[in-house]
Amino acid sequence: MIESLAPFRETFEKELDAYRANLPKTNLYQPIDYILSLGGKRIRPLLVLLAGKAYRGDDLSLYPAAIAIEVFHNFSLVHDDIMDEAPLRRGKPTVHAKWNDNAAILSGDAMLIEAYKLLAKSSREKLPEIIDLFNTTSVEVCEGQQSDMDFETREDVSLEEYIQMIKHKTAVLLGCALKMGGILGGASEEDQQNLYDFGVKAGIGFQIQDDYLDAFGDPETFGKQVGGDILSNKKTFLTIAALKEANGSVRSELEGIFFQERIQEPQQKVSRVLEIYKELGIDRLSRNESDSYFQSAHDLLKKLDIDDAARRGFFAFLEALQVRKS
Amino acid sequence: MIESLAPFRETFEKELDAYRANLPKTNLYQPIDYILSLGGKRIRPLLVLLAGKAYRGDDLSLYPAAIAIEVFHNFSLVHDDIMDEAPLRRGKPTVHAKWNDNAAILSGDAMLIEAYKLLAKSSREKLPEIIDLFNTTSVEVCEGQQSDMDFETREDVSLEEYIQMIKHKTAVLLGCALKMGGILGGASEEDQQNLYDFGVKAGIGFQIQDDYLDAFGDPETFGKQVGGDILSNKKTFLTIAALKEANGSVRSELEGIFFQERIQEPQQKVSRVLEIYKELGIDRLSRNESDSYFQSAHDLLKKLDIDDAARRGFFAFLEALQVRKS
Repeated sequence: MIESLAPFRETFEKELDAYRANLPKTNLYQPIDYILSLGGKRIRPLLVLLAGKAYRGDDLSLYPAAIAIEVFHNFSLVHDDIMDEAPLRRGKPTVHAKWNDNAAILSGDAMLIEAYKLLAKSSREKLPEIIDLFNTTSVEVCEGQQSDMDFETREDVSLEEYIQMIKHKTAVLLGCALKMGGILGGASEEDQQNLYDFGVKAGIGFQIQDDYLDAFGDPETFGKQVGGDILSNKKTFLTIAALKEANGSVRSELEGIFFQERIQEPQQKVSRVLEIYKELGIDRLSRNESDSYFQSAHDLLKKLDIDDAARRGFFAFLEALQVRKS
Repeated sequence: MIESLAPFRETFEKELDAYRANLPKTNLYQPIDYILSLGGKRIRPLLVLLAGKAYRGDDLSLYPAAIAIEVFHNFSLVHDDIMDEAPLRRGKPTVHAKWNDNAAILSGDAMLIEAYKLLAKSSREKLPEIIDLFNTTSVEVCEGQQSDMDFETREDVSLEEYIQMIKHKTAVLLGCALKMGGILGGASEEDQQNLYDFGVKAGIGFQIQDDYLDAFGDPETFGKQVGGDILSNKKTFLTIAALKEANGSVRSELEGIFFQERIQEPQQKVSRVLEIYKELGIDRLSRNESDSYFQSAHDLLKKLDIDDAARRGFFAFLEALQVRKS
């Protein structure tokens, strides 16, 4: 749990429970109720509330939008899990594993529409901006997932393309959540844009940091298996930067490891790749890159026209992202 | 082609071509461009135009909404085809067959969002009604598909449930298309409702007629294999009505045929089921039922506050539905 978002969590969970309780009791909605019951950090909807309340105190109109963002996020998880053939999500069976692919496809579709239904509760005056923002964001999330899949079979992904992919796949939804809170809370257009950019920068920084931690993180505190990305030949900021930096025999060795499975033994593979990363300075380079995004995010927060208490909430959120423990 | 919709077709196809030409040239959008290129009768988008123009002549704002309805319809085809494992659509490979399931899931998702993007071009003033109508309709289409899948493993589906399923799966989108045209064209609320109800009644009548033709249609003019529903044990108005009407040994025989595959030889199965249908009067009963829906649709048209030329267009459309040749 991120502490700065904690004050909003209890009410949000209550509102989400009420939403779930009102879903029809038919087969279409059971997977929707299930996936929403699995918990998670609820970062995206809580960002709607953090931003909205920074401008307009306790506005109940924020909750449908916050739930919409969470429902959309879970839609993308349900469909991504089918595509990735993932058996588990938050330690529980994924929707397609518990039901079947068809149920997961169709319930996911219904969740995407449900998100629009929730957004449609916004005031007439604000609806066009809300819908435009959500349309742009949600199709970018699809584009990000498509790029991620495309990258699996490509050997020439550039760092720019990679950053564009993580921006779309994860960062824009954070920006969208924050901007939506800003729109509903009555932020100026300038603040709306700064909120959006803050979310995007923080999201990209977080994702690059996640790539770094997957290779260099502390196995005690990093939630996933350290070295997992290397073992699965996943394209990350680190692999792409390493292939870019490496020359001659080192480059051939890396290509052999990632594209031709030259090293079969898992522990040996991870050790050798980490050695190469260190020789090339990829650990420092990726740290610098995520820090630079976090710094941009930090600078954007200073520009927001909000009171100090609210700003402290944003700074605390950003700090929490940077000391990732789970 | 339905003649009464022909006057709108050429411009619609031009607008749709322009829309397709503007889609990004990335992997996500290729299946979207492909499925939209396969043609089809374009009934739904042309109904937006038929209704819209009945109230407000030549309004260009109708086209994005008409395209949205066609894109949504094709989204539902792409996802349904995955679920049904259908290899062909309009004589060409389905999206999941030409690419793969993942591409079909993700491009379908993007199409659903694209539909909202197109609807968001509506005037600020009309947007809330348009979005509400589309939200309600699109989630009902999902509910219809879910019921259709649920029915496959159920032996106790009632006629009421069946009609509710075909209403959701196919009829509400016709109602939605017509009402959307009405909203954009400036129809009164009463006319909007009558347009919607007209579309729903006509859609249900058409679907029951389709069930009838699958059993009793002229093999020369019916587009599909006559008896196909019987061979695949599909639940249709006819099977459900027959199981309801039949008693004693006839009922046992029907249950044996449909639920226990008692007759293996295709021609023998079709002949025996048709015999039973005739003995029970299911041919007359289903004809009466579809006629009754067509009559209700007909009566609703008389109430519309439009000029005679426009009304003739609607009547001609309804008539064309009733003399189905393809």
